[in-house]
Amino acid sequence: MTQPPSGAARPISRWPVPAMVDLPEDLKARILEVQSKAGFVPNVFLALAHRPDELRAFLAYHDALLLKPEKTPGPDGSPRGLSKGEREMIIVATSSANHCLYCVVAHGAILRVYEKKPLVADQVAINHRKADITPRQRAMLDFAMKVCLDSATVDEADFAVLHAQGFTDEDIWDIGAITAFFGLSNRMANMTGMRPNDEFYLMGRVPRNKT
Amino acid sequence: MTQPPSGAARPISRWPVPAMVDLPEDLKARILEVQSKAGFVPNVFLALAHRPDELRAFLAYHDALLLKPEKTPGPDGSPRGLSKGEREMIIVATSSANHCLYCVVAHGAILRVYEKKPLVADQVAINHRKADITPRQRAMLDFAMKVCLDSATVDEADFAVLHAQGFTDEDIWDIGAITAFFGLSNRMANMTGMRPNDEFYLMGRVPRNKT
Amino acid sequence: MTQPPSGAARPISRWPVPAMVDLPEDLKARILEVQSKAGFVPNVFLALAHRPDELRAFLAYHDALLLKPEKTPGPDGSPRGLSKGEREMIIVATSSANHCLYCVVAHGAILRVYEKKPLVADQVAINHRKADITPRQRAMLDFAMKVCLDSATVDEADFAVLHAQGFTDEDIWDIGAITAFFGLSNRMANMTGMRPNDEFYLMGRVPRNKT
Amino acid sequence: MTQPPSGAARPISRWPVPAMVDLPEDLKARILEVQSKAGFVPNVFLALAHRPDELRAFLAYHDALLLKPEKTPGPDGSPRGLSKGEREMIIVATSSANHCLYCVVAHGAILRVYEKKPLVADQVAINHRKADITPRQRAMLDFAMKVCLDSATVDEADFAVLHAQGFTDEDIWDIGAITAFFGLSNRMANMTGMRPNDEFYLMGRVPRNKT
Amino acid sequence: MTQPPSGAARPISRWPVPAMVDLPEDLKARILEVQSKAGFVPNVFLALAHRPDELRAFLAYHDALLLKPEKTPGPDGSPRGLSKGEREMIIVATSSANHCLYCVVAHGAILRVYEKKPLVADQVAINHRKADITPRQRAMLDFAMKVCLDSATVDEADFAVLHAQGFTDEDIWDIGAITAFFGLSNRMANMTGMRPNDEFYLMGRVPRNKT
Amino acid sequence: MTQPPSGAARPISRWPVPAMVDLPEDLKARILEVQSKAGFVPNVFLALAHRPDELRAFLAYHDALLLKPEKTPGPDGSPRGLSKGEREMIIVATSSANHCLYCVVAHGAILRVYEKKPLVADQVAINHRKADITPRQRAMLDFAMKVCLDSATVDEADFAVLHAQGFTDEDIWDIGAITAFFGLSNRMANMTGMRPNDEFYLMGRVPRNKT
Repeated sequence: MTQPPSGAARPISRWPVPAMVDLPEDLKARILEVQSKAGFVPNVFLALAHRPDELRAFLAYHDALLLKPEKTPGPDGSPRGLSKGEREMIIVATSSANHCLYCVVAHGAILRVYEKKPLVADQVAINHRKADITPRQRAMLDFAMKVCLDSATVDEADFAVLHAQGFTDEDIWDIGAITAFFGLSNRMANMTGMRPNDEFYLMGRVPRNKT
Repeated sequence: MTQPPSGAARPISRWPVPAMVDLPEDLKARILEVQSKAGFVPNVFLALAHRPDELRAFLAYHDALLLKPEKTPGPDGSPRGLSKGEREMIIVATSSANHCLYCVVAHGAILRVYEKKPLVADQVAINHRKADITPRQRAMLDFAMKVCLDSATVDEADFAVLHAQGFTDEDIWDIGAITAFFGLSNRMANMTGMRPNDEFYLMGRVPRNKT
Repeated sequence: MTQPPSGAARPISRWPVPAMVDLPEDLKARILEVQSKAGFVPNVFLALAHRPDELRAFLAYHDALLLKPEKTPGPDGSPRGLSKGEREMIIVATSSANHCLYCVVAHGAILRVYEKKPLVADQVAINHRKADITPRQRAMLDFAMKVCLDSATVDEADFAVLHAQGFTDEDIWDIGAITAFFGLSNRMANMTGMRPNDEFYLMGRVPRNKT
Repeated sequence: MTQPPSGAARPISRWPVPAMVDLPEDLKARILEVQSKAGFVPNVFLALAHRPDELRAFLAYHDALLLKPEKTPGPDGSPRGLSKGEREMIIVATSSANHCLYCVVAHGAILRVYEKKPLVADQVAINHRKADITPRQRAMLDFAMKVCLDSATVDEADFAVLHAQGFTDEDIWDIGAITAFFGLSNRMANMTGMRPNDEFYLMGRVPRNKT
Repeated sequence: MTQPPSGAARPISRWPVPAMVDLPEDLKARILEVQSKAGFVPNVFLALAHRPDELRAFLAYHDALLLKPEKTPGPDGSPRGLSKGEREMIIVATSSANHCLYCVVAHGAILRVYEKKPLVADQVAINHRKADITPRQRAMLDFAMKVCLDSATVDEADFAVLHAQGFTDEDIWDIGAITAFFGLSNRMANMTGMRPNDEFYLMGRVPRNKT
Repeated sequence: MTQPPSGAARPISRWPVPAMVDLPEDLKARILEVQSKAGFVPNVFLALAHRPDELRAFLAYHDALLLKPEKTPGPDGSPRGLSKGEREMIIVATSSANHCLYCVVAHGAILRVYEKKPLVADQVAINHRKADITPRQRAMLDFAMKVCLDSATVDEADFAVLHAQGFTDEDIWDIGAITAFFGLSNRMANMTGMRPNDEFYLMGRVPRNKT
């Protein structure tokens, strides 16, 4: 790696970033847990910790939308719900539409890891229509992009397209809610100049034993 | 009132709306508290209660951003922070940019009540540049609109304009975060077809003793 | 009412506004007639009276488009032409797309009065797709918005949609011409900073005997 | 001329066009007057004559804005008001922004004739920033384009730019009102598919004695 | 002609323009050939000759796309490939979308000459939907405009529309490649302020024996 | 690498791709040269080889713009011209604005290699305003984006900004011409569905001895 370690050289936020010792216990515990799993602390935790109450709500919303049991296909093999990788696809596609550096880089990494496909995150970020995804996933991202960029025009015709691809109304809520939540996240990251950790850029691009 | 009571005739959301008795205790308590204060249950509580965990996070985020002690001007009369009315102006202006019927109507009502100005909500919703607001509030809304519509281009020049109007970095975080949070709310309301309660439309337009 | 009477505190136009005594007789007569009906002089008359010839043409165009006998349904109940309320819906929806404070507020009031629906003006102004209107009215407003925002792409497919809703070619001319005329009006009001009379904001929101 | 005479082959409007004999006397007289001057009847008269009252108002508005005595420079040579050619520049530039075939072609012809510059109409229509015009005219067209495309954001800074170029508030009203009126005209022409007379295309491109 | 000869009065490019004597032999030969055919040197040759290597590549690309044998209709009269006039229509329509004065004026002239229709270039430049062209040509231009303005969304549905009009995949490549190449040309002309020769404006508008 | 070798599984273009043996000798030689240097044949060569004359012109243009001797700083250390890395930054930023998967991925790789900065390509692609680049490079990319997205409005004020950063007019031509050329390339890639080689995605992300 020819670049300095994560966050060493440049500020990760335009606002002050609290030291770990100054954080409330619950947030400290959550951050340490993430660190032990990921090997580093994603900067979003530190940048948003400038406002502990807001960070708590942010994490609660995040968890409600993303920490769900992985989908199990039905007995007939029909898809059920959104997979973890699909949730990340939504984040990457819509965050790119919002030009959010932090979310595209960080969730691009997670998307590669979940899907075990090193190319898909870049594809979805640049032009989801050209990505190596299924027609069902294409419809999912088309809808997410509409909620992201022009939610006022969402109507029943959009729902019909998704139903035809096997999505339930609960799945559609998930697609829209993830898009809406990361629309919030994108705006906070753009305003604060939130810097993605250097580690995210390479993650999921090479087999584990190579890095 | 020549229209049916709130929510009587038309669905308030495209998704199922839980009955009060089926709600978790904490949400039920919160909703009853709001009802006793407002005289009715704002539909956003019921529509989002379809997903209790998400509603809890939503309310926590909302409270962190909006339930703050009212600003006290400094000894020199200089403004300090955002007033409750100013927070609502941000919501109304950006929600209108997102064409969100629920948020413009509901927060337009709250804005009128806080500011005791029956005209300002409609002005801010239609064209904030023509509203009866101060230059400081105009700058605040210009920035909110940029975070709402084009957050990727926010840069130091924008902060300089706000500093020149007496806003601190903490105030700027508030402006951006409220915008970002209601961007989430607008997208959920647009997707679910969330219907504002009929009561909101008239609220704050006539002196209390007249209604 | 906690605000000053109409026009008392702030200029109603960036340009000079003539005194009633200085107006040509025909315009004075017209304005007095309006005043006796409405109880006040809508500011558009005074602001545009800065140029009497233009105001005369403006009023002639306005009357040609809006002062038509109310539609009478055919013997089979089929709709015939545009109702007065529908004409105002077109004005409110397209004026909101042009962010014209004067026209949305003034014609929002007239819309509420004609339709006897206190909510419909705000709904149409914020997002006509979510308004409590008929599918026929929705198609009418979709077409009006296209003429307002992207008239170069109007083509036969648009006419087919309107014909399918029972609109005749004469009705379609009305929709387009009202949109075109208020596009003119919106631009004049935006340029002159035309201020809506305070009276409009509340009009049609409460039953007559209450105000 | 290798093409059929004006209007011979293709309809000049999507709506019925009245025969001259069926027109009200005042409109007939006006049209005959134009014909005797121009050598042909511009199609806008015939297309809009489908609605005599609207055409009368249209012509009255047109005359109020365009039939003004030519400007006379002040004793110090300072410009006074808009010249006839400048009024046509505004029409051509803004009608092109609205992609209105009729107005660009017809008023492009008039612009060439007034200015005695065979190139200026095409230049202004395609990109007014590259046209052979004065900086004062460039500022005039920049403002007209703003009124045409984004009138909600017009503010005092725009007026200051025009004042610096010697435009008075009365001149600015002219610029904006001409833009607004032709915004109406453009939308009517686009909706009706109004066809420019073939004669306009060549007019003013070659010295009189050559055609 | 009431204007100065081509390029006499105003610079044809913001960058230095080489004298003919200073040009490499191959470019000089090419330019003299064009001059002897057209009667003047189109300014694009001189403006781009500032960079001989780039001009050579530009001309090679241009020739590969435009110097093709004219189409011969099949035995059944079915259209085959793009005619020279159709290639120019694509250039004029897309260059107008890019507001490129040089390309609209110069290729408008060539379009008129090839098609022997003095009106078609202005029609296609202002609004191709209103031009006197065939439905097949309309579909061709619709596709060209999509490649010009929003190429990321081109997909199979677009190809199907063109196939239905009898275009082969080779024809479609031509449409897209001409659009792409003139997108390059438009940007160079806009950046350099490339001035069209005065001669182009009138070319093809009057029968040969009249000019 | 967990994905199939370059081009094995999915078509690299919507059009037929010629076999190497069927290519003209000069193109075959060029392609073999690239292959021996890069270790694989970038798909753009094969996809565009469907039209050998166009590919030759494409390569000649590419070489004229990109194969220039690396800049040498002046004696005073002042920057001179565009470095190879800076040329690639322009390509990556503008290709991302055009949502061109091929160019962002392929030139992102080359950018990383030239700049020896594994993060910069993703940063420039997602939001160049947040990238780890110099103010001079920021100004360069701002101008490139304007040429890419709105070239009609480029004017002297834009040149002044670049001059203030030490760019000469020759440098500015380079910035604009590279942007214009890749605007062509982006449109061809988007239309043909040109697929980037899998190899590009990882290139330049890890030190040579690690891959």
